[in-house]
Amino acid sequence: MQELVERINTEGIHVGGGIVKLDGFLNHQVDPMLTERMGSAFHDEFSKLGIGKPDKIVTAEVSGIPAALATARIYNVPVLYARKHQSSVMTDIYYCAQTKSRTKGVDVTLLISRQYLTAGEKIIIIDDFLATGSTVKALSSIIDASGASLIGIGCVIEKPQEGGRAMLGFRSLPIVSLAKIELRGEELHVYE
Amino acid sequence: MQELVERINTEGIHVGGGIVKLDGFLNHQVDPMLTERMGSAFHDEFSKLGIGKPDKIVTAEVSGIPAALATARIYNVPVLYARKHQSSVMTDIYYCAQTKSRTKGVDVTLLISRQYLTAGEKIIIIDDFLATGSTVKALSSIIDASGASLIGIGCVIEKPQEGGRAMLGFRSLPIVSLAKIELRGEELHVYE
Repeated sequence: MQELVERINTEGIHVGGGIVKLDGFLNHQVDPMLTERMGSAFHDEFSKLGIGKPDKIVTAEVSGIPAALATARIYNVPVLYARKHQSSVMTDIYYCAQTKSRTKGVDVTLLISRQYLTAGEKIIIIDDFLATGSTVKALSSIIDASGASLIGIGCVIEKPQEGGRAMLGFRSLPIVSLAKIELRGEELHVYE
Repeated sequence: MQELVERINTEGIHVGGGIVKLDGFLNHQVDPMLTERMGSAFHDEFSKLGIGKPDKIVTAEVSGIPAALATARIYNVPVLYARKHQSSVMTDIYYCAQTKSRTKGVDVTLLISRQYLTAGEKIIIIDDFLATGSTVKALSSIIDASGASLIGIGCVIEKPQEGGRAMLGFRSLPIVSLAKIELRGEELHVYE
């Protein structure tokens, strides 16, 4: 997605260690029109790969939500976001899986209510970053536990050097990323 | 918003203490089409009240994001969500304000980067619930500190019995809610 590559090049701030701050349009302030075009781009890429309409989009709070919602809107299906914190309103039985927060340096438990994932449902995961693959792996283990089927994975930005795609090891499952970021020396390289 | 009143009546679960769980379409699973109509409803209500186009929509993570994004999309302006957790990517200078989580029972610090709020900007706050008003108050104090102007407040669901509207005490600032929930005895009453 060339527009996204340009926005990352113009507005991305490398804060060190390969972590890129994209608070102007992705992780703090969100550009709703760019987000809408991300949803269309995911839809079009999945269609090209022969992936049909899912029953649900799954993501993790917080920064995955805008792109996941835009994708869900195109497919006209619900989006389900894994919670990271127990609250007094969380009275269901939950599927849980551990992930590591790349930017907070801590283990995080992802929770999805059993009520909203059903055996046989076709699921697409959408998230903002694919780095080590830890969040996608946790979400996919929850989907497996529910008996639903993961049919595709979309991430707004992939960081191939962190090895997430290889770690996930999905041989027949398409992973779509809209832009890729690599650190070469001290320089960021951004490409489609 | 009659559609929303019906969804709350059909799917809302009263978990006690006046707290209503709306995980099927608002707080865990999100209905993108209903969310889009919420955005249109906010836009239409603000227009009726003579509130013009804002420069930015402000909300707080997590559950305010979908409705805020839908509203931002209608106005074609950015949405800025206050973060609740420091991460290693948060390297800016932030405005901070305290709020209380109604469902987690703890104090929470809301953070918005100084970079994304500018003196003179017109802001609409959108959030999922208006109960005690604590989150809206924290967001409005941040907006005040930045020199931006709050021109309207929209909440998906208001709980008038918790006194948020009165506590906020905005005499000339419109507060739009799309549905209201009251606890009468043990029964929930939901109305426009």
